Amino acid sequence: MKPSIPKGTRDFLPHEVRRRNYIFDVIRKHFHRYGYQPIETPVMENLSTLTGKYGEEGDRLLFKVLNNGDFLGKADSQQLAAQDSDAVLPQISKRGLRYDLTVPFARYVVMHQNDLAFPFKRYAIAPVWRADRPQKGRYNEFYQCDADVVGSDSLLYEAELTQLLDWVFADLGLRVVIRLNNRKILAGLAEIAGHQDRMMDITIAIDKLDKIGEAGVEKELRERGVDAAAIDTIKQFLGVTSLGKVAPLLEKSAIGREGIGELQAVFDTIGATTSRVEFDVTLARGLNYYTGCIYEVAVDTDSHPGIQMGSIAGGGRYADLTGIFGGRDLPGVGISFGAERIYDVLEELQLFPADASEDLEYLLLCLDEASLAHGFELVGQLRRAGRNADLYPAAAKLGKMMKYADQRNAPKVIIIGSEEVKSGKYSVKTMATGEQATQSLSGLIG
Amino acid sequence: MKPSIPKGTRDFLPHEVRRRNYIFDVIRKHFHRYGYQPIETPVMENLSTLTGKYGEEGDRLLFKVLNNGDFLGKADSQQLAAQDSDAVLPQISKRGLRYDLTVPFARYVVMHQNDLAFPFKRYAIAPVWRADRPQKGRYNEFYQCDADVVGSDSLLYEAELTQLLDWVFADLGLRVVIRLNNRKILAGLAEIAGHQDRMMDITIAIDKLDKIGEAGVEKELRERGVDAAAIDTIKQFLGVTSLGKVAPLLEKSAIGREGIGELQAVFDTIGATTSRVEFDVTLARGLNYYTGCIYEVAVDTDSHPGIQMGSIAGGGRYADLTGIFGGRDLPGVGISFGAERIYDVLEELQLFPADASEDLEYLLLCLDEASLAHGFELVGQLRRAGRNADLYPAAAKLGKMMKYADQRNAPKVIIIGSEEVKSGKYSVKTMATGEQATQSLSGLIG
Repeated sequence: MKPSIPKGTRDFLPHEVRRRNYIFDVIRKHFHRYGYQPIETPVMENLSTLTGKYGEEGDRLLFKVLNNGDFLGKADSQQLAAQDSDAVLPQISKRGLRYDLTVPFARYVVMHQNDLAFPFKRYAIAPVWRADRPQKGRYNEFYQCDADVVGSDSLLYEAELTQLLDWVFADLGLRVVIRLNNRKILAGLAEIAGHQDRMMDITIAIDKLDKIGEAGVEKELRERGVDAAAIDTIKQFLGVTSLGKVAPLLEKSAIGREGIGELQAVFDTIGATTSRVEFDVTLARGLNYYTGCIYEVAVDTDSHPGIQMGSIAGGGRYADLTGIFGGRDLPGVGISFGAERIYDVLEELQLFPADASEDLEYLLLCLDEASLAHGFELVGQLRRAGRNADLYPAAAKLGKMMKYADQRNAPKVIIIGSEEVKSGKYSVKTMATGEQATQSLSGLIG
Repeated sequence: MKPSIPKGTRDFLPHEVRRRNYIFDVIRKHFHRYGYQPIETPVMENLSTLTGKYGEEGDRLLFKVLNNGDFLGKADSQQLAAQDSDAVLPQISKRGLRYDLTVPFARYVVMHQNDLAFPFKRYAIAPVWRADRPQKGRYNEFYQCDADVVGSDSLLYEAELTQLLDWVFADLGLRVVIRLNNRKILAGLAEIAGHQDRMMDITIAIDKLDKIGEAGVEKELRERGVDAAAIDTIKQFLGVTSLGKVAPLLEKSAIGREGIGELQAVFDTIGATTSRVEFDVTLARGLNYYTGCIYEVAVDTDSHPGIQMGSIAGGGRYADLTGIFGGRDLPGVGISFGAERIYDVLEELQLFPADASEDLEYLLLCLDEASLAHGFELVGQLRRAGRNADLYPAAAKLGKMMKYADQRNAPKVIIIGSEEVKSGKYSVKTMATGEQATQSLSGLIG
């Protein structure tokens, strides 16, 4: 019986955990710097909290947890005999694994609103579960890293979150393009084109511009029933890359002007950035609940040619977080980092710092049994001095112990025999260079 | 419809998350210092991995995850109609939530043995799930913090883990008693008493000494069918508090002598400690799989009177980690911290450092709209200088903003009006003392 793990889930080796934590730690550091506070919610939520929040497809992709005990005892035996999964489900399962961090956040805000100070800035870095068909880069269990502020419609937060995106990626050594748009601009575009009711159809089509080109967008618009005059109007927008040039096109739309004004205020506030921050009228973001500014971050392929990886972070403003749970009207804005994709990009570009994979500093090897007690004493002194250190627990052949040091990625090896025990002078080998030096305890911890 | 969370699960407010992370961070720091490496395993495991590993009771307490899609489609319709939960279960569920971190670790070692260097030192700090009836201090979702080393029977690891326990609690400011025993001493005791086959009965009884007293232990032994002569022999052990005094009693038992020798070696190796480290012949630890040294840590009630909290950490040596999965014979030793209980104790004793609950340093409040742009600029400069800082996003009444600063637990508040914008000198209020000082940007970040 060979053990295995469920499809779409992963084990992580120590160096992988450390690299993942390196990314999470950088993101978390900046969340703290910007005053976002950590919250935690249970992995299991009531299905009544989760169901109906992600569309029909989402409901199907929820992992449901079976009720405990005699779970079939109270189920309808006729429905059971008929093998009617849909009818039986609510009778045998009342909990599920969270599907994202947003719905639990909305539930949390409603339940704890009296304990929270608004504007409430929270972050969460935690796994979520989706019963997608597993494929390369898509897992059933994966991490989300979200920061949101709710209870304010100040555009300063849009500017702040753009800065935060910029700083995190600068800190990771990754050059990115941050693209901004505003849903109100897209609404204005639909209005100007005479298709106010078709904003989603139009934005879905123009969102594909970089994939299918202008002719492709035109074809898709036609298939979606947008008339020729409207298509001509829309085409005017496609080539526009500055807010200043899109403004005249939207002069006659109140909502469009509002979107332009908001975005202009955000650009005016941001200040200097490391990343390219660009207006992109074709940026739509799939999620229906966005109502204002929207963001999307991609690797800057001018700086990192050859990287093919879509969006690695994104977000936007929404008018109402908690309405689904009967909460009071709470507008908010949030961003989310795609940590799994960022990991793949940093690995491909070899951008992980050397010390992100291992934090052991010294490994001590003893040449004979008699030196082991000294080795244990010394490793204790190193640890007390704040150094991460380890001791091979027996006197084995040097070759075997050096192989262990290699496998452990120990940066420095200290070899201890009777001479060293007597003199208190240790030969320290730097594994990367092969360099040897003789040091006393004070040198080792100095 | 008021939202809720499943019974036995918890939401955590920001200051609670920070305090929990403070504990995890201290434990993690020492794990790293001692060369333990992080691994991660999925929250969901195959039920074939989990089932049968925790006894019948454990199998019942596993949370099982329903198969996706038409889960009843392939189940036996007669068994369904008969509402036979046990028979149907394996047909509709193949995954479950992990019940502890040990079985997933054993599974991991078997699957990745070719990628690991032995002795392999790993730690994991992660939630586990048990469908226990929720009660005060017992949750369905809770954290475990485990460190284990497998692939070595060196007693240096027993000494190292005792040190590690000592250091973690010293770092947390909690005085503890670390009690040590050895299963071989208990086996020797059973042998000397002529009840080699009844070691579990005997140890379960004497483990209760501090709860039910000597008379209670005697009664329990009698009820478990231990004869009077054996009870007299066992009673000789109960008052013994030193290894030196128990040794003569075990002279005739080979396994008993072995246990004494091992424990003596551990005591000889440990060195100076902050905690009281004591031999306790009545310490048994419930888990059957321990075979050598065992540990248990409790709050030192001499230093912290009135704390009633049982074991807050424990562990021991086992002969074979991976046998259950057909792995090769891998002896190991490990410890586990009861983080949830440690939290309760630190809170009761007010031992959390002040900065464990909040890491915001400055909150900026603007008195008028015109100052907001300056406030945004200043908060950005503070953040760039590495300070955790935040800005109230509008010019509201000072009283309202100060209330927000209180709720956010901001240690320092910077108030910005037209004067400050002009002069670049800011009035900084320390919230705890009410003290005010005037500082320029360089003073704020200096």
